[in-house]
Amino acid sequence: MSELPGEFALIARHFRPLAAPEALGLGDDAAFLTPPPGRDLVLSADAMVEGVHFLPADPPDLVARKLLRVNLSDLAAKGAAPLGYLLTLAAPRATPDAWFAAFAAGLAADQARYGIGLFGGDTTSTPGPITLSLTILGTVAPGAAVHRAGARAGYGIWVSGTIGDAALGLAALQGRLDDPSGTLAARYRLPEPRLGLVRAGLVAACLDVSDGLVQDLGHLCRAGGVGAEIEAALVPRSAAARAAGPAWLGTCLTGGDDYEVLMAVPPEHEPALAGVCATVPLTRIGRFVAGAAAVCVRDETGAAMRFDHGGWSHFG
Amino acid sequence: MSELPGEFALIARHFRPLAAPEALGLGDDAAFLTPPPGRDLVLSADAMVEGVHFLPADPPDLVARKLLRVNLSDLAAKGAAPLGYLLTLAAPRATPDAWFAAFAAGLAADQARYGIGLFGGDTTSTPGPITLSLTILGTVAPGAAVHRAGARAGYGIWVSGTIGDAALGLAALQGRLDDPSGTLAARYRLPEPRLGLVRAGLVAACLDVSDGLVQDLGHLCRAGGVGAEIEAALVPRSAAARAAGPAWLGTCLTGGDDYEVLMAVPPEHEPALAGVCATVPLTRIGRFVAGAAAVCVRDETGAAMRFDHGGWSHFG
Repeated sequence: MSELPGEFALIARHFRPLAAPEALGLGDDAAFLTPPPGRDLVLSADAMVEGVHFLPADPPDLVARKLLRVNLSDLAAKGAAPLGYLLTLAAPRATPDAWFAAFAAGLAADQARYGIGLFGGDTTSTPGPITLSLTILGTVAPGAAVHRAGARAGYGIWVSGTIGDAALGLAALQGRLDDPSGTLAARYRLPEPRLGLVRAGLVAACLDVSDGLVQDLGHLCRAGGVGAEIEAALVPRSAAARAAGPAWLGTCLTGGDDYEVLMAVPPEHEPALAGVCATVPLTRIGRFVAGAAAVCVRDETGAAMRFDHGGWSHFG
Repeated sequence: MSELPGEFALIARHFRPLAAPEALGLGDDAAFLTPPPGRDLVLSADAMVEGVHFLPADPPDLVARKLLRVNLSDLAAKGAAPLGYLLTLAAPRATPDAWFAAFAAGLAADQARYGIGLFGGDTTSTPGPITLSLTILGTVAPGAAVHRAGARAGYGIWVSGTIGDAALGLAALQGRLDDPSGTLAARYRLPEPRLGLVRAGLVAACLDVSDGLVQDLGHLCRAGGVGAEIEAALVPRSAAARAAGPAWLGTCLTGGDDYEVLMAVPPEHEPALAGVCATVPLTRIGRFVAGAAAVCVRDETGAAMRFDHGGWSHFG
């Protein structure tokens, strides 16, 4: 009734090659999955809308990979290993076949990279922008999931990678900032989920930085019933982000789309955490403190910084 | 970054009350689920777009319940019992709070009816129409799932309930058909998933009729490598559908949104199937035959009927 013209052929051409064995070649109404014995499931879903979460000119393969990766990032922050995903895709009838081909190629590339398959989904037409929704399934050993709640006063605040590149990349793609190396735009378009890095034995609470460091740190504070103090100078920024200059510091601290993991780490585990990964830097940027669930960012003089938007106070 | 204004408050107000225990009050990035021991998982996802799958004037609670029910219908056709779901919702920023309240109330009503909870999801803004995506999780005993493949020549073709009401209901809502009792429109707006009816011991293959009887029967044919012959006069139609007159017979046979189950039943199980449910009629409408994977619908004279659209030949 409401299908794209040739929906079935389109699915067969582009999406059937992506099907996990559990999806029976996408030839059934559902996928059938025997859960890995002795593991718990971790489930998450995120949507992306053209013009909101990605730009119409973004390469379709990168849109697909970003969609998959923002969901993988949720698993990474919970200490889970990815299993597979379901995808729904609403696209205008005039969407060219080449868009679907490139989109599916992006999924195929990251399926191979992360060892996962497509469990199922739905393709439909829309009079509006391309709208994507992905549900990811992962597994974790029972009791080994890392939650948002768990931060305590005195725990260290740690973050992976570098913060702010994605927000600056968006600014670059919008022509508001120079990005001669293209690394900032690349970070906006293709986040790197930090799978395998967050371990329940070392990390007391975690989430991934999707909505901005300050705001997401506020989530950890509220979930744990603690405050947070961080030093702006300690927040790791890439060479490209530093080259943008001090005027962009606030954007780095409050902008979204980094998909780094933000962790609450008990002091006795901090030495071990520092050595947990040889390839991704982990940086201590402050500590949780007793008191109201508020985030205080100090500048180099020790003064509390204020932000125009994206700060914890909108939702405090 | 891209949230609705007050997204977190909106989620807390309308969706947190729907959260399953596994979703931790929607206060984390994921749900954590211990799979029921000794059960397999069944996974499916469907999207619905305003103006495509539902009408802008449709009551939001019915939109929510239809979204849930079309997914529950996929579980029903596979012989699975529902467990819970994830939901992503893209809505224009101007969507009134009352819309979300009514939408959530519809979900709450059907969660109670079907004994399921919300595992998680995502809420975002869109410049386009309201776009909904739902991933459903169900369980089935190992080996007891019913697939699309499995029809063999000589098996009976059975269908639950009545066929065509939903397509006529859409015509009524569009002003193309009288619907004095309102029952046709009600069937379009609120399907009845046939949970608990399809049993692997009796049914060899099944799907739910979402895209029209003839087209969906074609799916069973292709999956089983058989043809199908049905008699139009045997296809069960409600009193309201019969009252629409013979001109609407083709719409009944090819229109979508019925969400009845369409089953391939070995002859030795047909007597038992006929008595499987006291409340929902099950009707034998024809049989699978050897030969090409084509659907033949015979009228009362025995002549093969032809359809303008929605027939198997578009995809044969």
